Amino acid sequence: MSDGQEENTLVVVLAGGQGSRFWPLSRAARPKQFLSISEDGESLIQATVRRIVPLVGEGNVRVVANPSLHGLIQEHVPAAKIVSEPFAKNTAACIGLAAVYAKVESKDRDPVLVVLPADHAIKDEVRLRAALGEAISHARSSDVLVTLGIPPTEANTGYGYIRRGTPIEGRTFKVDRFFEKPSLERAEKYLEEGGYSWNSGMFIWRANIILEAFRMYLPQMHEGLMEIARLLESGAAVDAKVAEIFGSFESISIDFGILEHARNCLVVDAEQFGWNDVGSWTQWAESFQADADKNLIRGDALVIDSTGCVIKSSGRLIAAVGLKDIVVIDTGDALLVVSRDNVQEVRKVVEELKRGNRTELV
Amino acid sequence: MSDGQEENTLVVVLAGGQGSRFWPLSRAARPKQFLSISEDGESLIQATVRRIVPLVGEGNVRVVANPSLHGLIQEHVPAAKIVSEPFAKNTAACIGLAAVYAKVESKDRDPVLVVLPADHAIKDEVRLRAALGEAISHARSSDVLVTLGIPPTEANTGYGYIRRGTPIEGRTFKVDRFFEKPSLERAEKYLEEGGYSWNSGMFIWRANIILEAFRMYLPQMHEGLMEIARLLESGAAVDAKVAEIFGSFESISIDFGILEHARNCLVVDAEQFGWNDVGSWTQWAESFQADADKNLIRGDALVIDSTGCVIKSSGRLIAAVGLKDIVVIDTGDALLVVSRDNVQEVRKVVEELKRGNRTELV
Repeated sequence: MSDGQEENTLVVVLAGGQGSRFWPLSRAARPKQFLSISEDGESLIQATVRRIVPLVGEGNVRVVANPSLHGLIQEHVPAAKIVSEPFAKNTAACIGLAAVYAKVESKDRDPVLVVLPADHAIKDEVRLRAALGEAISHARSSDVLVTLGIPPTEANTGYGYIRRGTPIEGRTFKVDRFFEKPSLERAEKYLEEGGYSWNSGMFIWRANIILEAFRMYLPQMHEGLMEIARLLESGAAVDAKVAEIFGSFESISIDFGILEHARNCLVVDAEQFGWNDVGSWTQWAESFQADADKNLIRGDALVIDSTGCVIKSSGRLIAAVGLKDIVVIDTGDALLVVSRDNVQEVRKVVEELKRGNRTELV
Repeated sequence: MSDGQEENTLVVVLAGGQGSRFWPLSRAARPKQFLSISEDGESLIQATVRRIVPLVGEGNVRVVANPSLHGLIQEHVPAAKIVSEPFAKNTAACIGLAAVYAKVESKDRDPVLVVLPADHAIKDEVRLRAALGEAISHARSSDVLVTLGIPPTEANTGYGYIRRGTPIEGRTFKVDRFFEKPSLERAEKYLEEGGYSWNSGMFIWRANIILEAFRMYLPQMHEGLMEIARLLESGAAVDAKVAEIFGSFESISIDFGILEHARNCLVVDAEQFGWNDVGSWTQWAESFQADADKNLIRGDALVIDSTGCVIKSSGRLIAAVGLKDIVVIDTGDALLVVSRDNVQEVRKVVEELKRGNRTELV
């Protein structure tokens, strides 16, 4: 703590997503992170910020999102500083931009960045902060890219997997390999083999280290980011120019663009903290206790001879008869009926609606 | 045609049912027979009457129903004469009452009664009338109870079956035996064996012959019916007394109470006339042409990776993803989601709603 430099930690909350697998509740104008999935009415983004503030302080939270969402962000997390993401460009561009802003803002410092999705649910926030603390200390002291890993509890095909390599210390390991969302067979194999963590999408690294990784694995994007850095340092009105450069960036995820290639990746296999990325309706349902027939029912519903169903009414009665593993979500203006096995495909509905120009439902 | 007596044929349209398997479209105040299932807006009861008038004349149609439905009946089939069924008592009591009214009305004549459900769909009405003509001629000339049979096209478990016995003439056979709605295994066996007809619920007999069958197999009900006959012949205001007697009748179907026991039953195995009792949502769907994925879609729906589904929207978008053999019916104020295998169980929803006193949805 000699000069306070090493203590500089910024949280980057990624709030640009739409959560289209959460349709029809999530919409372009009301994405998942601004919805509440708990009974207390706290939105997912509010919970994300509330959980991290004890670790980093209120002034160190940055939220990255498209200008169309800035109003909602100010309303939900007024103390957070907004970084404008001119276009939706997937996580690599978004994280790169945040790193550049953080670097410029911190002058000659090299802040640790804690990158957090805005729309995840977490039950045990003390354990979350403990895991993040472990990750931050590695990121601060070594030139590493740290991912927060979650011990898998089932053969989930909705998450990326990380094969853990050499143990470092505590719950931290070198990353042997990242794997994209697997097939069910593969997911079962991972679970059986052991030694895998789910990729939580929470990343911890210093700004300089992730920018160096951009230089190595996404050199074109790195060049654009450096140009943005120079523009920001000039202090002039640069929004249009930043948008132009950002608009030229490739739309690629940080996992695919960088982490799968980098050799300096660590994973903290966190103690189970009740993580749920609320990435689908079945995952939403898993945040609650199902009934004896394994049905989760919210709102006015009459459920007969049915098991494993998720039923969410919004006022009108839903009668379900003889259903197995079916999800029914009613939002009043639209209705979704999907089999449990296909909840990941709900995004196709949003794509179709966009194609059909049915903007009122997207 | 010497004195016109033999030509006396009355049609008895049974319009007392609610069609609870057709919920949520059918309701107590708007039963199935008053709904239109075709694009032209003609209700099922209107079609039933229109089809039979060329055979018997407009003045010979009687509709049996509860007083609560008389307004709707006058609106839909103004030329028909209404026979009031004081309580819902299943088909035996209803048919017995209609027979008594017909007998009293016809004085010493013994009219042929053509008993027709009000809520069936029929595509080829010329063939229907041909089959009814054959049945009427047997009923007029012999002391028989004739059922119109339908050649089965599949192992349907929603219909009763009739095993045909000795051929009489044309398409008419003695009935060997009536069978209640079978299990799938049994239905498959019937289809494989051959020699079975579906019980259409259309019956043709003389008033005296069916009343004689009541005397033999439902003697208590017969006694009550005879008392009602005496009351009607007295010409006094007898409604309350008739209701009282009718109220004491057993609630039993004509099949179970009489036809399964009678020895003088015939069946006309009608030439296929596109009969559909619209007894469930899948049968409703069968009146229309499904698409290449075997889905039947009506209204605003987005159907992705789904087969064998029936989707009926009423304004709001229904998105269906990854569904197999699921029926989704939206009426705006209620929503039904049921697996194809369970469409017969939709009545349970209505029972549950009644139990829960949710009259607005029943």
